[in-house]
Amino acid sequence: MLFSQSQNFAEWYNELVLKADLAEYSPVRGCMIIKPYGYAIWENIQKILDAEIKKLGVKNVYFPLFIPENYLKKESEHIKGFSPEVAWVTYGGNKKLQERLAIRPTSETIMYSVFANWIRSYRDLPLKINQWANIVRWEMRPRLFLRTLEFLWQEGHTAHSTEKEANSMAKKVLLMYKNFIQNTLAVYVEDGIKTESEKFAGAKKTLTLEALMKDGKALQMGTSHNLGQNFSKAFKIKFLDRKGKQNYVWQTSWGVSTRLIGGIIMNHGDDKGLILPPKIAPFQVVIVPIWKNSKEKNQVKDYIKKIEEKLKEKNIRCLSDWNKQTPGWKFNEWELKGIPLRLEIGPKEAKKRKITLVPRDILKKEEMTLKSFVDNLDKILEDIQKRIFTASKKFTKENTHQVETFSEFKNIISHKGGFIKTFWCGNPKCEKEIKEQTKATIRCIPFNQDRQKGKCIKCGRKSNLKVLFAKAY
Amino acid sequence: MLFSQSQNFAEWYNELVLKADLAEYSPVRGCMIIKPYGYAIWENIQKILDAEIKKLGVKNVYFPLFIPENYLKKESEHIKGFSPEVAWVTYGGNKKLQERLAIRPTSETIMYSVFANWIRSYRDLPLKINQWANIVRWEMRPRLFLRTLEFLWQEGHTAHSTEKEANSMAKKVLLMYKNFIQNTLAVYVEDGIKTESEKFAGAKKTLTLEALMKDGKALQMGTSHNLGQNFSKAFKIKFLDRKGKQNYVWQTSWGVSTRLIGGIIMNHGDDKGLILPPKIAPFQVVIVPIWKNSKEKNQVKDYIKKIEEKLKEKNIRCLSDWNKQTPGWKFNEWELKGIPLRLEIGPKEAKKRKITLVPRDILKKEEMTLKSFVDNLDKILEDIQKRIFTASKKFTKENTHQVETFSEFKNIISHKGGFIKTFWCGNPKCEKEIKEQTKATIRCIPFNQDRQKGKCIKCGRKSNLKVLFAKAY
Repeated sequence: MLFSQSQNFAEWYNELVLKADLAEYSPVRGCMIIKPYGYAIWENIQKILDAEIKKLGVKNVYFPLFIPENYLKKESEHIKGFSPEVAWVTYGGNKKLQERLAIRPTSETIMYSVFANWIRSYRDLPLKINQWANIVRWEMRPRLFLRTLEFLWQEGHTAHSTEKEANSMAKKVLLMYKNFIQNTLAVYVEDGIKTESEKFAGAKKTLTLEALMKDGKALQMGTSHNLGQNFSKAFKIKFLDRKGKQNYVWQTSWGVSTRLIGGIIMNHGDDKGLILPPKIAPFQVVIVPIWKNSKEKNQVKDYIKKIEEKLKEKNIRCLSDWNKQTPGWKFNEWELKGIPLRLEIGPKEAKKRKITLVPRDILKKEEMTLKSFVDNLDKILEDIQKRIFTASKKFTKENTHQVETFSEFKNIISHKGGFIKTFWCGNPKCEKEIKEQTKATIRCIPFNQDRQKGKCIKCGRKSNLKVLFAKAY
Repeated sequence: MLFSQSQNFAEWYNELVLKADLAEYSPVRGCMIIKPYGYAIWENIQKILDAEIKKLGVKNVYFPLFIPENYLKKESEHIKGFSPEVAWVTYGGNKKLQERLAIRPTSETIMYSVFANWIRSYRDLPLKINQWANIVRWEMRPRLFLRTLEFLWQEGHTAHSTEKEANSMAKKVLLMYKNFIQNTLAVYVEDGIKTESEKFAGAKKTLTLEALMKDGKALQMGTSHNLGQNFSKAFKIKFLDRKGKQNYVWQTSWGVSTRLIGGIIMNHGDDKGLILPPKIAPFQVVIVPIWKNSKEKNQVKDYIKKIEEKLKEKNIRCLSDWNKQTPGWKFNEWELKGIPLRLEIGPKEAKKRKITLVPRDILKKEEMTLKSFVDNLDKILEDIQKRIFTASKKFTKENTHQVETFSEFKNIISHKGGFIKTFWCGNPKCEKEIKEQTKATIRCIPFNQDRQKGKCIKCGRKSNLKVLFAKAY
């Protein structure tokens, strides 16, 4: 790696994404090519998250990429929020279209236009669907995984017969995301509600999960929107309730995207490269053979074959690197690519039926018998998973600052970064001025309020609302 | 079902797709919404096929949706073939684009533009990638699953250092598709080579799999293209070979799409509805409870719980229908939806610990003890899978006609339909005239040539080339 995190975090990130072969820019401005190693991470994310989504009774579907302009315009806040980011198709099959078609920047409008046909009575509710799809938003300053013109995501959409049920669904989804991000991606997140100015265009409330990256900036990892009846009124999605009365449905929508991969990189990575959580690493174990001559090579080969068999029996994703480079070169390479566990296997290990292992996060060598290694392998990987989550949580806590004056606020934001937890009066004017003066935004109003009393960091008015500020991606 | 196959096949198809809740048209002309039941079939297809693709050493990636116009134009035959079908993005983020962007009608050009950077020497070869993606082709006469403006597919792309290796790859892929379609989808296919006028725009040779639908029309199920060096020359994809010489790579591309679902419907379905192969059916077994009073209902419920446990242990996808409708109504419903095996469980079955089962394909009732049912369940489902494949093969063979005169040819095409196997001189002029006069096209030149001698069905010239004609979707 040419760049270190402390020296130039942005360049460290770019260099790592390219050198670890995760993704690269395409010839189309702002669009990325997700390469095999990066896509394998996404496939593992999809597999685990899809099962969790289905456990909530949600079924997968596929809706069109195209949205007629008049649909996108039906919910006024929604179009206001998205119109600067839309790509428009104006020609199809050599003919100019009568109405231009938006490439979906999100699918509320195209989906809800048919919800009105699908839903007639309370018996059709709740309706819970999800799709895995590509999304286009015309970003001006693209960054690989974090902000690209096109990205991949899942978007869930539900409709309910009561406000209470919709509220509960939005919360359940956020909790499902939180568990997934913390337990599977090992990234610690803060949860809360977005302010009016930061919420999703068209939502009543946006629930969010915010993680702290190693440069002290926040990244929004996932959101769950309580849409209220905003869209159901715009799209006339009515149902006959149990009492025979017509009513508008209550809705939610929610999503996470390939941006999660950016979060994994910036939350766990170090100056040597990626650190991948075992649960989503394309390879959980890499075996680096060490030998001097062909006799040693044969001994090592036989022994590694045996190790591979054992790993296969345990369904461990494993790679043995028999390339020509030196072991030292390979150590660097696989540290760069973040494989959670490295095994160094030479003639000494082969002879003694032992394993030398090096976990990626702590890079501390340990020796074990083959038997004890195999017996403990699940636990070894679990320990890595737990350790990197603990580190993520510790880093976030250590970089969450409680401040009482605005000068302290400005000082921390411009020098240390991190989350700032402080009082806000609730006035969008203060929020806006803080943003203009510091570039920090309110990432969320945490669910967990300690009910202390204090003064708004900006205007000094009394407040009992503690919020989380940070500069964000 | 309002329509029968014999009465109006096209209407039977449309009605079935809608009534079985597989898909529907969206408000955007020619685009479809794939509903949960239809999408679950696609997920099962993806899961099994993705594993087969990976077994060939192919890795998944994701490339941009957008293709700059100048890239699409680099291979002259390619743009000629696709330009009438392209949708163009001309505005992004409220600004007119300097160069318009095509929505991918296929990804050769966007992928191969970076292959030139990825490939330097023979050590970088073979390169084998695949993506699951959405595709847009501006179809004028859309039909659900068969021909829609947007569809889902996988597209594999490989680059090789020798012509021989590329040839072999294209064939391996076709064989993989053939095994998948025959063994998993239970659809019998004929394999062969496309004629020059029917091959993929830009390919050297197109290998194809053709299946016969129940109305006697053919459906192309999957293709594998040997691209030769057409694209590598257009995109300057060169490599340094073992002798230190610069050479252009040899390439293949190949794909199957959501069209396969159309093939399953039209190849297996009957007047009662869908018949789904057990391997890809969203539910393999449906349990219909039968009861008269609450005492009976409780007995049946307990017994069904037990059956469900047994099925779960065997990883069978199963559904119990406790809705209010009559058993007869449910039989019709699940026959329409094509669930391979129905269990009818009433108080009699509960008392005697027996199962009444009805396979969807033959609709013949059988009684069995619970134990013998559970022990034989894998075989029962396998038998259904095999029987519907055998039926598919038998139907195709019975509707493959060997003809010797053009009047016989015209007569069969306009009355019976089906495949016509006959001699063709190889002249595109004869092929074109036959198409104009009968709407039948050469579906393929079968790999399996019996080396007889005969006369071209159109011009009467001597020929030893037997080809397969049909009207096609």
